[in-house]
Amino acid sequence: MTKLVKPLAVSLGDPAGIAPEVICEAWTKRGAKSLPPFFVTGGAGVLRAAAALRGFRVPLAIIDHPGQAVEAFASALPVLGGSDSEYRPGEPDESGARLALGSLEAASLLAASRDAGAIVTGPIAKSELAKIGFGFPGQTEFVAAACDIPADDAVMMLAGPQLRTVPLTVHCALSEVPGRISADLILRRATIVDQALRQDFGIPAPRIAICGLNPHAGEGGRMGREEIEIIAPAIAALRAAGIDATGPHPADALFAGHARGTYDVAIAMYHDQALIPLKALDFDQGVNVTLGLPIIRTSPDHGTAFGIAGTGAARPGAMIEAIRMAGEMALRRTGR
Amino acid sequence: MTKLVKPLAVSLGDPAGIAPEVICEAWTKRGAKSLPPFFVTGGAGVLRAAAALRGFRVPLAIIDHPGQAVEAFASALPVLGGSDSEYRPGEPDESGARLALGSLEAASLLAASRDAGAIVTGPIAKSELAKIGFGFPGQTEFVAAACDIPADDAVMMLAGPQLRTVPLTVHCALSEVPGRISADLILRRATIVDQALRQDFGIPAPRIAICGLNPHAGEGGRMGREEIEIIAPAIAALRAAGIDATGPHPADALFAGHARGTYDVAIAMYHDQALIPLKALDFDQGVNVTLGLPIIRTSPDHGTAFGIAGTGAARPGAMIEAIRMAGEMALRRTGR
Repeated sequence: MTKLVKPLAVSLGDPAGIAPEVICEAWTKRGAKSLPPFFVTGGAGVLRAAAALRGFRVPLAIIDHPGQAVEAFASALPVLGGSDSEYRPGEPDESGARLALGSLEAASLLAASRDAGAIVTGPIAKSELAKIGFGFPGQTEFVAAACDIPADDAVMMLAGPQLRTVPLTVHCALSEVPGRISADLILRRATIVDQALRQDFGIPAPRIAICGLNPHAGEGGRMGREEIEIIAPAIAALRAAGIDATGPHPADALFAGHARGTYDVAIAMYHDQALIPLKALDFDQGVNVTLGLPIIRTSPDHGTAFGIAGTGAARPGAMIEAIRMAGEMALRRTGR
Repeated sequence: MTKLVKPLAVSLGDPAGIAPEVICEAWTKRGAKSLPPFFVTGGAGVLRAAAALRGFRVPLAIIDHPGQAVEAFASALPVLGGSDSEYRPGEPDESGARLALGSLEAASLLAASRDAGAIVTGPIAKSELAKIGFGFPGQTEFVAAACDIPADDAVMMLAGPQLRTVPLTVHCALSEVPGRISADLILRRATIVDQALRQDFGIPAPRIAICGLNPHAGEGGRMGREEIEIIAPAIAALRAAGIDATGPHPADALFAGHARGTYDVAIAMYHDQALIPLKALDFDQGVNVTLGLPIIRTSPDHGTAFGIAGTGAARPGAMIEAIRMAGEMALRRTGR
């Protein structure tokens, strides 16, 4: 993989969260986990301090261009750019938020310009970024805008060893969910998911299971009519377009062990319907992948975890999986 | 346990579903699984045919009174009462629905009269029972009415080896959920749950985790205000009453492995929020327990599964767990 793929750009995330330490720990496991070369955009001082606090031996290589990361990666963690802040784990502040945003911007630009093979984003705190004027609901929407893609077509997929799920609606109150679901939205998202699983995950004919909104998928209209009026017609249209979509499935049964082998991805109607099963089954290895972008973007499926930053409780599994998956996706695109 | 607990009454469920065969299979495993003595209310012909089709050697003992079940149980599956129907797996019909209802009624009465130590209900098809005039949303409400308990105080808990969850609202459309949640309802249900975990599960100070309704538990009001206006005040009131309630917790994180050890039961706001994690983690051993009743009632947490009835695909794990758990609960009540 080393030779085929451009190095991946990893954004630092909020420096007061667990991202700096899990990035450092991921680098120490680059051999055992066969990770592709990656570099971090900024935060050398933060990374050095985080590694020291956790006792990781992580020499840094300050680089000027992504191309230098490949060679440096074997013996040092490459860091591009000089932006930095104090390292105060668990104490987010404005200078940390500025560093997080700058790191995200730099990594996004390098992925968009194809100088980086993909972007892997460390977790940020939306509330902290909002204080410095960040106007996006989250990093996904920011990256979409950086790629000139409508936010609605940047599709969040959660992927773990046992399950892939896509929430149709994401960050809105539960009471708004029924009003936001439409056949058009299902068609648009499922088509992007189908295309992305073919292109980036090497699945030639993706099996897409679509959840109902209501308990027991409405049980024939007795508990809600969205399945009959919205979801089933969307599935019929998807099937007519040659996409292997099934459902609406009762969501509680769809994530049971015997059912999980019957599909490649489940499209859920709302945030918790997608994230509860993923985190219950695959918490430590969950990756957030953004589908539908011209670039490859992954992220560990956890937050800043300010409460445990620097304490030794943070586990690097999800960051490692996010880097590994981004590398594999990049390899598939390169190989075509 | 054999000597201390009265025999359990198992209702047949819909005879066209998988209940007859998993009841028979549970009896064949009574020794290996240390199951307490139980008997089935009716359906001798159905049980005999189901056992024959699946190749289980299950002699039946037709009994006139629950008291005879204890002695008969070692060498035969005791069946009380003569009601019966044809055995046509996968083909529900009216005579089967009548048998299912009669079996449920008989088992409920025997539990209420204390002739049986508990009731374990086989799965029924609500749509089939509705055709013969069954006016309850489900068996839970029927059993509550048989005990003169308001349906709202009969609390469904799902229990598996890894998790216990209680849905605050159950069989309603998702769009109705926000309107049905109230601090009163949370208080009432959590108090019943607390009491039941002490009495029937031997947990002296139950830790009750309460989910938020919205993604990230509303994230400080940015995605819904139910957490601020309804759920948090209810938790404060519970704590003031000496109940160890915490939350509102973001539901997606609450069911991850590292979080599951921090509570004894999670109260979810709606059906799928409670049932998705339970079935994802514990599908084959999930038990539906009704809390708040004067009698003990459990049920395997699966449906009739008409599609696989008689084929050999049905697994008896949940029925075995439902019987085992009912026996343990009965023993705790007897032992007090």
